[in-house]
Amino acid sequence: MQTIHIEPLIRQSFMEFGDIIQATAEVQSFLINQGNTRRYNDLATVVATGEDARPIISIFRGKPYALPLTLRLLERHPFGSQAFMPVEPARFLAIVAPDHHGIPGPPRAFLAHPGQGVNYFVNVWHGVLTPLDRETDFLVVDRAGEGENLEIYNLPEPYEVRE
Amino acid sequence: MQTIHIEPLIRQSFMEFGDIIQATAEVQSFLINQGNTRRYNDLATVVATGEDARPIISIFRGKPYALPLTLRLLERHPFGSQAFMPVEPARFLAIVAPDHHGIPGPPRAFLAHPGQGVNYFVNVWHGVLTPLDRETDFLVVDRAGEGENLEIYNLPEPYEVRE
Repeated sequence: MQTIHIEPLIRQSFMEFGDIIQATAEVQSFLINQGNTRRYNDLATVVATGEDARPIISIFRGKPYALPLTLRLLERHPFGSQAFMPVEPARFLAIVAPDHHGIPGPPRAFLAHPGQGVNYFVNVWHGVLTPLDRETDFLVVDRAGEGENLEIYNLPEPYEVRE
Repeated sequence: MQTIHIEPLIRQSFMEFGDIIQATAEVQSFLINQGNTRRYNDLATVVATGEDARPIISIFRGKPYALPLTLRLLERHPFGSQAFMPVEPARFLAIVAPDHHGIPGPPRAFLAHPGQGVNYFVNVWHGVLTPLDRETDFLVVDRAGEGENLEIYNLPEPYEVRE
């Protein structure tokens, strides 16, 4: 079984797959509300295309995974972005893969630390929700609408994901 | 100074102003990801209208307020909804008001407990971000685009908001 070693979730490595949602000094921010609120602005764009499409907000309650884990499938959403942000301080894995002629190329696994979320771009191959610490609730921004917005690819050979 | 007494954040009271974002047994949910994730689906719809409009995700870092607080202004966004969800367990106030001929009617204040977020409907009068416990980060889903998407109304007489 091939091994995927977990990488840190940093913009330079992740930018082909999605946005990192994080309030850091590196992103544009400004004060609002008479100086009582700092807005870290426009960290991710929500995309929802296709017939009767609308962006929706949901909560995903995910069971935790232990490492090393076995990666058996990837999925993607042709009609919308999909953002995940834990609503409590918690770590999770963002597993993604480039597309190679319609199927996933070599996957990569990124470790999101507390305070980090991700927004997968439209049609980017990614793994299922993978909290690491405990059962965790995530705020999810994705798409509702007509059409089949889920494509699943079962990997012919699973990968082992480890630190 | 007139007093506003804080109410619990429940659907029946809040439904004219916005959605409550919360994973409860009362909302539609289903299992995904081979049973490892429960999706509490479509808790809020994101609306972004007008020229070059797009829904965006930001983080607001808000300073806390002590109770009782003095409410001096309300604001609204004519071209988009605005969702707020704390990314850590924290309480906040959702202060809203019905519209009376273009200005706010009597405001109401709702207490959001940990696990609850809100999505203000388009053009609903609401107060500024009001965490109660400590400086708190919120995931915010609202709108970018052309046009003036902020209307502020300074109350001729402030209100006192208290438990």
